[in-house]
Amino acid sequence: MSKVLVSGHRNPDTDSIASAISFAYLQQQLGVDAEAVALGTPNEETQFALDTFGFKAPRVIEKAGDETRQVMLVDHNEAQQSIPDIKDLEVLAVVDHHRIANFETAGPLFYRAEPVGCSNTIILKLFKENNVAIPKNVAGMMLSAIISDSLLFKSPTCTEEDIKAAKELAEIAEVNIQAYGLDMLKAGTNLSTKTELELVTMDAKSFPMGDKTVRVAQVNTVDIADVLTRQEKLEAVMAKENADNNFDVFVLVITNILDSDSVILVVGNHQEIVEKAFNVTLENHTALLKGVVSRKKQVVPQLTEAFK
Amino acid sequence: MSKVLVSGHRNPDTDSIASAISFAYLQQQLGVDAEAVALGTPNEETQFALDTFGFKAPRVIEKAGDETRQVMLVDHNEAQQSIPDIKDLEVLAVVDHHRIANFETAGPLFYRAEPVGCSNTIILKLFKENNVAIPKNVAGMMLSAIISDSLLFKSPTCTEEDIKAAKELAEIAEVNIQAYGLDMLKAGTNLSTKTELELVTMDAKSFPMGDKTVRVAQVNTVDIADVLTRQEKLEAVMAKENADNNFDVFVLVITNILDSDSVILVVGNHQEIVEKAFNVTLENHTALLKGVVSRKKQVVPQLTEAFK
Repeated sequence: MSKVLVSGHRNPDTDSIASAISFAYLQQQLGVDAEAVALGTPNEETQFALDTFGFKAPRVIEKAGDETRQVMLVDHNEAQQSIPDIKDLEVLAVVDHHRIANFETAGPLFYRAEPVGCSNTIILKLFKENNVAIPKNVAGMMLSAIISDSLLFKSPTCTEEDIKAAKELAEIAEVNIQAYGLDMLKAGTNLSTKTELELVTMDAKSFPMGDKTVRVAQVNTVDIADVLTRQEKLEAVMAKENADNNFDVFVLVITNILDSDSVILVVGNHQEIVEKAFNVTLENHTALLKGVVSRKKQVVPQLTEAFK
Repeated sequence: MSKVLVSGHRNPDTDSIASAISFAYLQQQLGVDAEAVALGTPNEETQFALDTFGFKAPRVIEKAGDETRQVMLVDHNEAQQSIPDIKDLEVLAVVDHHRIANFETAGPLFYRAEPVGCSNTIILKLFKENNVAIPKNVAGMMLSAIISDSLLFKSPTCTEEDIKAAKELAEIAEVNIQAYGLDMLKAGTNLSTKTELELVTMDAKSFPMGDKTVRVAQVNTVDIADVLTRQEKLEAVMAKENADNNFDVFVLVITNILDSDSVILVVGNHQEIVEKAFNVTLENHTALLKGVVSRKKQVVPQLTEAFK
């Protein structure tokens, strides 16, 4: 078997980076010439985790076809979130915890998805099923991913299995979950050094919904009002993103990780469909979504349904 | 949780019927109100297995939406092979061993696919992972599915895992694999009682390829020449199927289960693309494909590539 690249999604978050590292490590132990790569540089939260556990950031690629034809995808499956030349590649395996859409293969493959809060909760199972021991630093990255995706177990996407997996991994990594977790999450909320363009692109995903393309970005903060002092400039870059990329509407989800609420900022067409999706009225293009912290569970399905 | 229907694909083969039975049984043991259903009546091979192990054929449904919103799919994922109102249903779980295409969900789900020869090889793993014992008669159906999909381990789709699973299941079912297997396969080759329409529909699947729809049916026999004595009438019903259902081309794969070769009979447009796919020249609309027994591995990928 030739070289296999293992990649998470574009605008990688901590789960995407950590999944690439942990799943590539597992594949290496199983005899596959696997390399973890990434479709972007780590955000500050992920960099905090990488620094803590002594990893370099995975090599950033813009396409795979010039070095291999075979890839494994972690933490995503949708083509528009994946390696740009994915249509020309053979996907050998997918480990994911998202909906399946815009994904198609010519032949059978290994696909493992479960409705849990984090890809690394599934990868932990795969380590066990294959009787491969998890090194301390890999366990630390896997734990970081669960903390990130679950916002320290507060997200409604978090399951009992995620909590159990995190405890198991924390023991291997010799880490205090609460203390380390809060430090890591806070490292990701330092938005002052970011431009408005960075804020709306660093954790953004596109979703085809009906015949529309909806862009949904999320930023974590400990002070939503602070982010909204930049509303005018944010709207300007969101409008430009829409125009440049043919997004029909752009929804920025600003999430307070301490009190677990979000405010959405909406730019583009079909704002009335977004209002319908969340049963809210936009005021000055924003609305408070009480208790909403999960794009995957509390934002995307509602938008998908409304755009049908 | 309300009632959950567990279904295989249209024109069900032995794996689809057996998977519905075995996976529904597993789900029941896990506390799910699951019922095995089918999208058609069993073929003679499957009926032989059902009779041997004392099962009634699963209830045939034409849609699910009037009795439940939640389903689990086994041995398939593509919408055009699934429950006709699948777009209105929530897919909770998929266990499959085919390519993924034309499949989309609004939210996360349980998806378990592996590139093995039979869905029941994967379902056996799920029984073990959940520590659920397999009753003798359920094991018999699961074994029958592996024998059917692998043509008694002769198909190139058959993996070491399938053989190992079959041996394990044969022990639980207290069955001699070779003797039972040949009896079961032969039961499925009694084509004399079938009309031409039945021959081209009983194990037929549609595949979107490029912007074309390709229909691929397969019949097993112990004498290909015997089937081809009916060529003229077969071509007539295949042409009518194309016209009635907007298939661009219809490929009937006639497989000799004893010597593991197939002859294809092709009706419709784009015959030159079919020729290119298999690197053959059609004579009188037919061509011998030496060593070809697997639609999934030796027919569909080649057609998909050629129709790109």
